[in-house]
Amino acid sequence: MMMTGKQYLDSLDDGRQIYLDGQRVDDVAAEPLFEAATRWVASGYDATHRPGDGEAGPYYDIPGSPQDLREQLELLLGWDMVTVTTAQGLLALLTAAARMRGTHPGYARRIEDYFEYCKSRDLRCVQAITDAKGNRKLPPSKQDDPDLYTRIVERRPDGIVVRGAKLHISAAAICHELVVMPTKMMKPGEEDWAVACAIPVGAPGVKIVNTTYAPRAEEEHFPYSSRYNMPEGFVVLDDVFVPNERVFLCGETEYSATFAHSLGLWERLGGSAHLAEGGDLLVGLAQLIAEANGLERVAHIKDKIAEMIIYATLTRAGLEAAIANAKTTPEGWVYPDELFTNAAKHYGAAEFNLMVRHLHDIAGGAVLTAPSMNDLRSSEVGPFVEKYMRTMDGVPAEYRMRLFHAIRDITADAYGGWQLVTMIQSGGGLYAQRLVVAKHYDMDRAKRLGLAAAGLTGEEAG
Amino acid sequence: MMMTGKQYLDSLDDGRQIYLDGQRVDDVAAEPLFEAATRWVASGYDATHRPGDGEAGPYYDIPGSPQDLREQLELLLGWDMVTVTTAQGLLALLTAAARMRGTHPGYARRIEDYFEYCKSRDLRCVQAITDAKGNRKLPPSKQDDPDLYTRIVERRPDGIVVRGAKLHISAAAICHELVVMPTKMMKPGEEDWAVACAIPVGAPGVKIVNTTYAPRAEEEHFPYSSRYNMPEGFVVLDDVFVPNERVFLCGETEYSATFAHSLGLWERLGGSAHLAEGGDLLVGLAQLIAEANGLERVAHIKDKIAEMIIYATLTRAGLEAAIANAKTTPEGWVYPDELFTNAAKHYGAAEFNLMVRHLHDIAGGAVLTAPSMNDLRSSEVGPFVEKYMRTMDGVPAEYRMRLFHAIRDITADAYGGWQLVTMIQSGGGLYAQRLVVAKHYDMDRAKRLGLAAAGLTGEEAG
Amino acid sequence: MMMTGKQYLDSLDDGRQIYLDGQRVDDVAAEPLFEAATRWVASGYDATHRPGDGEAGPYYDIPGSPQDLREQLELLLGWDMVTVTTAQGLLALLTAAARMRGTHPGYARRIEDYFEYCKSRDLRCVQAITDAKGNRKLPPSKQDDPDLYTRIVERRPDGIVVRGAKLHISAAAICHELVVMPTKMMKPGEEDWAVACAIPVGAPGVKIVNTTYAPRAEEEHFPYSSRYNMPEGFVVLDDVFVPNERVFLCGETEYSATFAHSLGLWERLGGSAHLAEGGDLLVGLAQLIAEANGLERVAHIKDKIAEMIIYATLTRAGLEAAIANAKTTPEGWVYPDELFTNAAKHYGAAEFNLMVRHLHDIAGGAVLTAPSMNDLRSSEVGPFVEKYMRTMDGVPAEYRMRLFHAIRDITADAYGGWQLVTMIQSGGGLYAQRLVVAKHYDMDRAKRLGLAAAGLTGEEAG
Amino acid sequence: MMMTGKQYLDSLDDGRQIYLDGQRVDDVAAEPLFEAATRWVASGYDATHRPGDGEAGPYYDIPGSPQDLREQLELLLGWDMVTVTTAQGLLALLTAAARMRGTHPGYARRIEDYFEYCKSRDLRCVQAITDAKGNRKLPPSKQDDPDLYTRIVERRPDGIVVRGAKLHISAAAICHELVVMPTKMMKPGEEDWAVACAIPVGAPGVKIVNTTYAPRAEEEHFPYSSRYNMPEGFVVLDDVFVPNERVFLCGETEYSATFAHSLGLWERLGGSAHLAEGGDLLVGLAQLIAEANGLERVAHIKDKIAEMIIYATLTRAGLEAAIANAKTTPEGWVYPDELFTNAAKHYGAAEFNLMVRHLHDIAGGAVLTAPSMNDLRSSEVGPFVEKYMRTMDGVPAEYRMRLFHAIRDITADAYGGWQLVTMIQSGGGLYAQRLVVAKHYDMDRAKRLGLAAAGLTGEEAG
Repeated sequence: MMMTGKQYLDSLDDGRQIYLDGQRVDDVAAEPLFEAATRWVASGYDATHRPGDGEAGPYYDIPGSPQDLREQLELLLGWDMVTVTTAQGLLALLTAAARMRGTHPGYARRIEDYFEYCKSRDLRCVQAITDAKGNRKLPPSKQDDPDLYTRIVERRPDGIVVRGAKLHISAAAICHELVVMPTKMMKPGEEDWAVACAIPVGAPGVKIVNTTYAPRAEEEHFPYSSRYNMPEGFVVLDDVFVPNERVFLCGETEYSATFAHSLGLWERLGGSAHLAEGGDLLVGLAQLIAEANGLERVAHIKDKIAEMIIYATLTRAGLEAAIANAKTTPEGWVYPDELFTNAAKHYGAAEFNLMVRHLHDIAGGAVLTAPSMNDLRSSEVGPFVEKYMRTMDGVPAEYRMRLFHAIRDITADAYGGWQLVTMIQSGGGLYAQRLVVAKHYDMDRAKRLGLAAAGLTGEEAG
Repeated sequence: MMMTGKQYLDSLDDGRQIYLDGQRVDDVAAEPLFEAATRWVASGYDATHRPGDGEAGPYYDIPGSPQDLREQLELLLGWDMVTVTTAQGLLALLTAAARMRGTHPGYARRIEDYFEYCKSRDLRCVQAITDAKGNRKLPPSKQDDPDLYTRIVERRPDGIVVRGAKLHISAAAICHELVVMPTKMMKPGEEDWAVACAIPVGAPGVKIVNTTYAPRAEEEHFPYSSRYNMPEGFVVLDDVFVPNERVFLCGETEYSATFAHSLGLWERLGGSAHLAEGGDLLVGLAQLIAEANGLERVAHIKDKIAEMIIYATLTRAGLEAAIANAKTTPEGWVYPDELFTNAAKHYGAAEFNLMVRHLHDIAGGAVLTAPSMNDLRSSEVGPFVEKYMRTMDGVPAEYRMRLFHAIRDITADAYGGWQLVTMIQSGGGLYAQRLVVAKHYDMDRAKRLGLAAAGLTGEEAG
Repeated sequence: MMMTGKQYLDSLDDGRQIYLDGQRVDDVAAEPLFEAATRWVASGYDATHRPGDGEAGPYYDIPGSPQDLREQLELLLGWDMVTVTTAQGLLALLTAAARMRGTHPGYARRIEDYFEYCKSRDLRCVQAITDAKGNRKLPPSKQDDPDLYTRIVERRPDGIVVRGAKLHISAAAICHELVVMPTKMMKPGEEDWAVACAIPVGAPGVKIVNTTYAPRAEEEHFPYSSRYNMPEGFVVLDDVFVPNERVFLCGETEYSATFAHSLGLWERLGGSAHLAEGGDLLVGLAQLIAEANGLERVAHIKDKIAEMIIYATLTRAGLEAAIANAKTTPEGWVYPDELFTNAAKHYGAAEFNLMVRHLHDIAGGAVLTAPSMNDLRSSEVGPFVEKYMRTMDGVPAEYRMRLFHAIRDITADAYGGWQLVTMIQSGGGLYAQRLVVAKHYDMDRAKRLGLAAAGLTGEEAG
Repeated sequence: MMMTGKQYLDSLDDGRQIYLDGQRVDDVAAEPLFEAATRWVASGYDATHRPGDGEAGPYYDIPGSPQDLREQLELLLGWDMVTVTTAQGLLALLTAAARMRGTHPGYARRIEDYFEYCKSRDLRCVQAITDAKGNRKLPPSKQDDPDLYTRIVERRPDGIVVRGAKLHISAAAICHELVVMPTKMMKPGEEDWAVACAIPVGAPGVKIVNTTYAPRAEEEHFPYSSRYNMPEGFVVLDDVFVPNERVFLCGETEYSATFAHSLGLWERLGGSAHLAEGGDLLVGLAQLIAEANGLERVAHIKDKIAEMIIYATLTRAGLEAAIANAKTTPEGWVYPDELFTNAAKHYGAAEFNLMVRHLHDIAGGAVLTAPSMNDLRSSEVGPFVEKYMRTMDGVPAEYRMRLFHAIRDITADAYGGWQLVTMIQSGGGLYAQRLVVAKHYDMDRAKRLGLAAAGLTGEEAG
């Protein structure tokens, strides 16, 4: 049964412990700094809603062919961030279930039951992975505070009690379920830290401290981020009880990285799609502002826009190649090629700052200094803003100012900063992303090419 | 006679027409969003203040030796932004005076008088250069609105009347004088646009519309930009009368670029100094956060910090080389070598985004998601923030959180975005900056090297 | 009817006027510096040869589906360079014919007849495009010597006489046919320079001056380039008569760029395929030498190899995307998507030098200083070379030395230099390549994204 | 007493065991592939020669002031490579002596005596550092062959016997003395590998296997490398006896890195000077060929040349800053600032490949395909080469061809490849170079800047 936006907003009133700026947020749906986020998610519910008990959202579909995959990816670009996260997270859980089925059929069954549970109630889930981590030189068991990595503090007949914190959890405060998984591979002896489970946001012991880049000033001055923002959750698990049916890993260190790896692929696929779309957006803004300024035929401007086009196109090419070379699991689930997905994700992330530089180079200082819409509406200074912010017939001040505001908002203000960091950090920083790429590469073939070029067979060595 | 900070604040109450968010700012010194800026400038007055009629600030000193230059540059790094602008702007005016003395001794004398006027009253000046510019494909005289470039609309016996707008004028609202100069070389037939002059901010017809990156939320969350910010002025010159003694150019198109060129050098010198200092700041933040996380010995982290060190060091090297190769004017004024100054400025600006990427790559997602100080002080969630934001003995939560807040504030929030754009745009965009470098290069020597390598003398050609 | 390698070699004895180092080459097949090249082409003939009158090489096939295209591209990687050029050149001619059929059916028919002529005789063709070009500031008609662009000097009833030079024509000396086409769009008034035609290499008036990177020393020291090299031809057309049936354009300036544009696509597709393969080769060499040195687990080495993997993978992704998004002509011919093809080509070319740097950084100085095989075989110093060039069990000196020789040959010697220049120049230099990319991009969609992000519809402008 | 060029050539006839292509070179001065190198060195002798017993070359001078340093650096750019190496190597030895004087005055005295010995005989020395190194995973003492790092195999009353190989020793075959030093820091237990000493090239047991990029074809086609090339030596030390007075380190592992560190500074100073000069050379070639083609006013060409200018200028700025901030030893010897020297060296090396790409992008394909001078002189094709390689009045074919030949020779042929590798490898690869930079940086100051920006004092931590 699918929820409406209204039902979603109502569902947030479940006693959840949400904090912002040091204060408890009593009514999440009413908090102004969460308003755009909850409205965005609610509109996602309304957009896909179909009445009827047996209906379920398309974000629960599992692609069965490359064509399915391509279509779902196009849908995904229209979904709100929480719906995307839900789709990716549950696909990842199912992928993990498939990998564990042989040795731990019980966990696999619990995961599948959980998937059906979420699907039948139209719930929204986020993944809770990153631990506090303490001193990065030391493993979980050597930290001076053992809770710096989330761990099982008690095993009971009917479930477990977990303690720790999960960081950087976008939208945690406004979704239904936290899918908790280990932040990295745990080693023998670290069984208490090898824990995966699902926890409702409103469960006792869950507390979420939020930060947000939602604009705190005139929304009009933030044409993009006032519509598209999400709170970032610092999720505290203060001795939270998890019943057995929601425990998906409990000490089996050999599977401790399975969840995060499964998630990584789907996350990076979505990430690459957003990067490609974001690349095209930067190109579009660059071209629009160049035209508004009358600069679109200047050689170095064209050259920079062409570089941006190559960036957007190559990121998209990685996606296209990942789909054209999709693989199929024994269950018949189709997933994108990991090498192409990851290469596109890394490239898109690594070059993003340079593309922002190009956009700033093309657009000029009015990105920062374009007056506000209130200035334009002022009877005292509005006529001057109108007179001097226009450039020519067909380019009135308001149009051009809104372009500048959008460029600032998207690339040179709070949301822009959030983007810069997120690009690099989603996927674990550039170094980690490179290692993932290398893992999926056919190095044997490359070495054969090298040997052949050197006139060797490889048998000379060894 | 030097002013105190208090006197400076009082001096702003001169009837000036200042606007913010569409509203007239009645009391500039009392406007909360200008408060940090005026406090910063006032503290600059207090820091250098010496009583006595004959005293003048060191920012009016003209360097007479490379050693002077080096010392002034070090002083400059401690000055507030408006004092820096004043020093650079007046030095630039004097440089322009020197170049015009032969043909237009009257203008030269007016400039020197004006310099003494500012010095004796301890005034702060900003340069007003960039025009609205309209359609960049067309010159001033072909725009559909002739005011899109600031121009003389009336010539009277006792002065001129100017009309137009000057954009991106940092601190215009809180200084005393606008030094107006043409935005580019004007050609014969564009005499009306070849105008340079000085205008008090409070003069009738001057209206300044402001934008600002001053934080609109809890200051503590913005440890840097809450202390160091400046309003950006959109300066309207609505038929402003300028008496003859403040007119420094009035139709002599052949000198229309002299002012901006003179300014460019001093501005880029200061810019390079700030870039070098800013580079060291990024290195310091990267090292501090790596240590706080326990990552300072990881190979790829060390490698990235080393790249940042090279960036900061090379930018500084350009500065050192510019001073070591300083030149002297016939007046005995010492100015930095233009080639080295400009090369350092361009390099520092072009690579800045990459250094920000390195810092984000090293620091991790908590740049964005570190809870606020209010969260830390909360009795409900504070203990959890304390527990999970610390990493080890010696790295308590508050210390680490403040580092994250500083990194976000400086590189991934409103001020960070302002920096990204300003780096690129000060100096006119990267393409313009490159052309300036090329202009000052000894190409003949390079060509001789090329010819010699080819076994040629050069006489084979021609 | 298909030729054998032997028949191909014999076919070169047709009186052609070939020069090398200022000397006429009397017997092309016997010239030592052409020997590897002709052997390479001959081996291509032998590899595909099928007896029988009706047989034709697969390089004359026209892809009719994306799958065909993918298969042909894989075949292409195994073909010799001249066969590749033949396939690309004739496909390009047919593409041009298709575009001209509506207005100039006669030219279209001549081209199709010529295609059948080449196919039935198994001829190898190269494209002759680049003119001498003289002073790049001036168009063909304004040069002080009108022959600096190839032109028609006489129109006869039975054909035309052409004069000029065509530069950078790889393999011209050892193929059968020159497919001559204009180097750029000609304008009205430049009818004499709007000429396309086919000329046998042995035709009277054709003279080809050659340069080559074929090694002039011990072949063993050049394990790659001693097998894979091609002479570069400076082709002089000294009043060459071309009969009407081989004239494909004769003054119709509106089609003067059609040939080069048609060729560009196929050339860049092949170029991208070779870049992707070349990227994998660089990765393979880097990994092999890192392993031979015992460095394969060092963090910064792994990091650089991962960067190289991303390079190779993204270049290949462009190719995969171009095929997955292939287009079909009215004739039913399938061609790759131009945007993805060109973006991949540009990226691969622009980053190639950096990948070479990575390889050199990983491999170390022995790339240059590894002794020769003759040193290894010397009774006096061989044992020392053997002793000190090995690194561990399984990595004997000879194996490691051959790897170093291959890396030097491919990236740091004559062939390596040829690669560096060719990467950049094929496609007309990076600036030209960027403009081609921009031409094929869906800018309207990007602008819609930009407008939507700014909260605009686009109707505010205009 | 100073030698003449003739005396130098004669001095090479000392029974030295030199090999090339597997053959013993009986007469080094007569070997064609060494001819340019020995002529270059001999001309260096002649250029500085002053008769008289007490005279000594300026390359033995020790700078006593920053001004001395600057002057010596300018001289250095005019010296042959072996003279440069001699000056750097002996300064490095003296620096090491100064560091060891306190604890090992005997070694210090031997080094000073050796310095006087070389100076009084006008000898040329090269440093022999890099060992064979075997499996890089293992230290010297764990290699399966202990000789893979040069070591003491016997200690006698009158001296020691050393065994091993030293690789990448430029000019070893044509100089007088090998200054042997450890390739890296040795640890306790590795005393046998902690050896530094001086060995005459002609000493029994020294065998040198050579590679060379000296052109093996028509010299005219290699206008630069036919004049400036050096053999690279693979130096075998086959149980070479070294008398005590030439032993500078013999088991004192704590000083094992002192020699290489001392050398590093001087080498990188010279390296940076050559990089700066080489940067200007690339700029000159780019401008000359752009002018010869008529492209010098095209926007993207100007832009690329400006980027090259910034490269050359910043490299030079590092040098200028290193001299302006020179330091003085207790002995009164002046040496350049290490931070600036190393930062300039790294930057120059890391960006070199990109500058080569720019040059190739600007120059076009004729870099590779310009016919030879023999073609130009041919009566059959010479007139055509003359006609089509010229571009306009004042740019005759020969002039333009020679420019292309020089660009190919310097950047896209054997010497060009040697440059690419050498840039990266001298200084130990880019990673090592970065670490050296980081070592000399004032990190405490940078951290203070970071703390201040965050509003911290640093006492919050700890």
